Amino acid sequence: MSDLMEIAIRRGFFWQSFEIYGGIAGFIDYAPLGNNLRRKIENIWRKYFVIEERAVEIDCPNIGIEEVFIASGHVSSFNDVAIECENCGRIFRADHYIKEKLDIEVDPSIEAVKEAVEYYQMKCECGGKFKDPTPISLMFKTTIGPGKGKVGYLRPETAQGMFINFTRLLHYFREKLPFGVAQIGRAYRNEISPRQGVIRLREFNQAELEYFVDPKFKRHEKFEDVAEDVVSLVDKFDVLHRIKLREAVERGIVAHELLAYFIGRTRRFLLDIGIKDEKLRFRQHKDDERAHYAADCWDAEVLTSFGWIEIVGIADRTDYDLKRHSELSGEDLSVFIPYPEPIKIKKKKVVAKMEKIGPTFKQKAKKIAEKLENVEPKDFVEVEVDGEKIKLTSEFFDVVEIEEELTGERIVPHVIEPSFGLDRISYAVLEHAFDKDIVDGEERKVLRLKRSVTPIEVAVLPLLSREPFTTKSLEIYSFLKTEGFYVEYDDSGSIGRRYRRYDEIGTPFCITVDHQTFEDDTVTIRDRDTTKQVRVSCKKLAEILRILLSTNKDIEEFGPRFR
Amino acid sequence: MSDLMEIAIRRGFFWQSFEIYGGIAGFIDYAPLGNNLRRKIENIWRKYFVIEERAVEIDCPNIGIEEVFIASGHVSSFNDVAIECENCGRIFRADHYIKEKLDIEVDPSIEAVKEAVEYYQMKCECGGKFKDPTPISLMFKTTIGPGKGKVGYLRPETAQGMFINFTRLLHYFREKLPFGVAQIGRAYRNEISPRQGVIRLREFNQAELEYFVDPKFKRHEKFEDVAEDVVSLVDKFDVLHRIKLREAVERGIVAHELLAYFIGRTRRFLLDIGIKDEKLRFRQHKDDERAHYAADCWDAEVLTSFGWIEIVGIADRTDYDLKRHSELSGEDLSVFIPYPEPIKIKKKKVVAKMEKIGPTFKQKAKKIAEKLENVEPKDFVEVEVDGEKIKLTSEFFDVVEIEEELTGERIVPHVIEPSFGLDRISYAVLEHAFDKDIVDGEERKVLRLKRSVTPIEVAVLPLLSREPFTTKSLEIYSFLKTEGFYVEYDDSGSIGRRYRRYDEIGTPFCITVDHQTFEDDTVTIRDRDTTKQVRVSCKKLAEILRILLSTNKDIEEFGPRFR
Repeated sequence: MSDLMEIAIRRGFFWQSFEIYGGIAGFIDYAPLGNNLRRKIENIWRKYFVIEERAVEIDCPNIGIEEVFIASGHVSSFNDVAIECENCGRIFRADHYIKEKLDIEVDPSIEAVKEAVEYYQMKCECGGKFKDPTPISLMFKTTIGPGKGKVGYLRPETAQGMFINFTRLLHYFREKLPFGVAQIGRAYRNEISPRQGVIRLREFNQAELEYFVDPKFKRHEKFEDVAEDVVSLVDKFDVLHRIKLREAVERGIVAHELLAYFIGRTRRFLLDIGIKDEKLRFRQHKDDERAHYAADCWDAEVLTSFGWIEIVGIADRTDYDLKRHSELSGEDLSVFIPYPEPIKIKKKKVVAKMEKIGPTFKQKAKKIAEKLENVEPKDFVEVEVDGEKIKLTSEFFDVVEIEEELTGERIVPHVIEPSFGLDRISYAVLEHAFDKDIVDGEERKVLRLKRSVTPIEVAVLPLLSREPFTTKSLEIYSFLKTEGFYVEYDDSGSIGRRYRRYDEIGTPFCITVDHQTFEDDTVTIRDRDTTKQVRVSCKKLAEILRILLSTNKDIEEFGPRFR
Repeated sequence: MSDLMEIAIRRGFFWQSFEIYGGIAGFIDYAPLGNNLRRKIENIWRKYFVIEERAVEIDCPNIGIEEVFIASGHVSSFNDVAIECENCGRIFRADHYIKEKLDIEVDPSIEAVKEAVEYYQMKCECGGKFKDPTPISLMFKTTIGPGKGKVGYLRPETAQGMFINFTRLLHYFREKLPFGVAQIGRAYRNEISPRQGVIRLREFNQAELEYFVDPKFKRHEKFEDVAEDVVSLVDKFDVLHRIKLREAVERGIVAHELLAYFIGRTRRFLLDIGIKDEKLRFRQHKDDERAHYAADCWDAEVLTSFGWIEIVGIADRTDYDLKRHSELSGEDLSVFIPYPEPIKIKKKKVVAKMEKIGPTFKQKAKKIAEKLENVEPKDFVEVEVDGEKIKLTSEFFDVVEIEEELTGERIVPHVIEPSFGLDRISYAVLEHAFDKDIVDGEERKVLRLKRSVTPIEVAVLPLLSREPFTTKSLEIYSFLKTEGFYVEYDDSGSIGRRYRRYDEIGTPFCITVDHQTFEDDTVTIRDRDTTKQVRVSCKKLAEILRILLSTNKDIEEFGPRFR
């Protein structure tokens, strides 16, 4: 186990779920510190992708009815190819098994897997032969209601909730594009044989934004804010570009401004929570790699001890989902887009000659005339009246040119989707924050987490573990709790050892109650990264901590250097 | 539909899930406003039950493995009695069906239901006869992994995650009781035939705190904070008390101080988010009503248009869960409680007389002597050596008195659990906030939500829907978004109509850009409840709003009354 994972488990970031019953692959618990970390990351995500956009957040059930995932294509297409051992009955995900045993990348199709298994005469770990590869659904299935009930699935992505609510959401936004709809919550993928801990989960946490736009305007009014940002792009031909987003759009590397905007915003968000720019790249999906719904897709990838791993997908899902749901539900999921000015078009139109039709068709004449209203002008036209098809030559009608005013058109919006994997992001933030240095001649393990994502913001420590230091420390601890800080109190072990304990979990500030506290009502604040200390008045402590935690200010701005 | 539900759906608090596919009972979507409301309530809950306690929050999977729910008793006991129609095949929850059709309360047991159905000759709505009643599991079942996989269930409560992690949590708290562990998340109950919208859901949101204590100390160090609070208690004999919590404990109405403390904290929390004290009571479970794990239980109930509904359960779960998980997993889930001082106890002890045993038992002598170490002193003792039982009279041993030092004892903690139903709470908050009054001679619908839970905190409105009012308003809107406020911009319709629109969703403050804005860079702030307005400087807007939203201050403290 890595140093980091040892700390993560021992100190309470992640735990194996159901550990006392032996655990099961693909599930983790967020322990106290991990929970705080992920919740804080979620709140920063909200600021970036909901509050600062023309966007809202909704929250839909984890269980979905079958119809939704038939329309989305998941019931038929959300599969992995598996190989099952004839002997021991174990089932493996084929591409991962082949990669693990032979270190070759195989296309995850039935044919390619079959060929590889035969060519390399692959065997199961137990020595048994494999049956023919088969696709296995990655959907968790359940039954809603008693008896046979109704088929339900645990959602494989939060996105579908936004699509099926499109009409109500459009109404919320007063029928005006563009707008965004976000959701933060659980999604599920019944992995065949997950083996990578936090990285490959059967139950995971997503934050997704579905940004609905007029397909003719794949732009964003705030693109200028990120246009000059320099990003690392790996295009679908595996060429790496270190390039400004504006230039990436101009040169056609990124398909349009809106994708580029979300690449930029994603990068800014990731840097803000502590991902290192030099370990971050955006990789374009190759043509044969994209999901069935995507026209273009860029993954944010970060470098970790597992190699480059995908943590965000930014896809242009086009109108695929809305069209599918429209077809299967019968609901119109289009938007009326008014033109800036109504436009006039000239149009040919059939007008009945009643003086001819009347005498010839008698009591059918009126119905024929009505039908002619909507007929395409031709030399001969045909109308159907009471089940009878009647052909009419041009002697029965005139073709006139009319002018029609159009105020707009109906379109099905396209969707740009930045989709974030919060579990991998939380893990990557820890890896990028983990550091070792030398303090007082000894090696120190420290999590250099950004102040805004630290699970424990402040530790209150009595210099000595006895009265009156302890009581005073507990008073400050209680006060800071009431003020809403994530704070801990610790009086066990030497002060140096306690500082190390909080360095290890990334707590940015330690407050120490020492002898001078009882002379002038001051305490010291210690900075995790520099280990410097300053002395401040107890009365100002909450205010100072609030500023420190929401900015990058140096503690030396708030009191005299102490050590 | 009630006025409130009409607003809730039209404006975007709650929507029927999967509406375009016809929907299904027991599932709702949190629409944009409802999502913000519930998230804010969750954050206030965190402050009350996590940050201000010696408590942490964790987050465990929604899917659990079978073992967990066998131990918890849910696999065998989480059932409702159902009746199925022989004719149409529909299945109903028996007690609810009988209540609905006959308005009688029937004990939800097989026998009582059978008797009622026969006695009243109950028929299905279709006219068909009912089969014999049967218990139906309320657990959603699924399969983890490919093929036959492993049985999994969607958790019926978040609580079990805290119990099975007990050892790790105890370690997090440095082996010291009491401590609390909270979880906010989804739970599932596969209701047989839910018919009450938001009130009876198959997928719902819980906030639960499991507070682990030494059973000998069911007290709380902060009990004094709530001891004088006067609450409405309905005891298990249906007697209503309007009583101070201290007195309720002294008179034995509430079993112990710790339950009373959480009743007090729960009440304070509920009042803080907008529940009305006069529509809130705590009702004790009757002896035959408690869950299988509970020794005492008090429900917080609120009066709504559905009658009194349960929104919180505060249960003393004793050591039921920890003991069950300990038995089934084989893990020791006890805590070592050190005595304040080691205590010395006198104890009689058997000591082998080797000079007698040696010659008599030869090569077995040493084993016999070892066994004697742990034998209760009696006149005759028996030991088993290599499968053989050997009786020894007192000539083979002495009984001596020794002094033993005990430093503490191992106990299994008890658990006090305040468990909150966030969906019902969110709905009740809306009902208690809903009001009608007369403004400018017209009836107005207004949600008098507490400022701290309002989904949209500020609306920015140009007085007139044209330049330069619109551009200036959009500037302020964007600025307030960047400052982190939940803010909307609205320029459609008369200013009066727009004020009504925001009154209806509970937005406490409307900012209006008017002619004077362009003279002195001021805007007006309008208060939802009083409809009063004051004029303030644009430069101070964010600061003023931040204070207003976090306090109950009157807007008149911040600028001259304007209207």
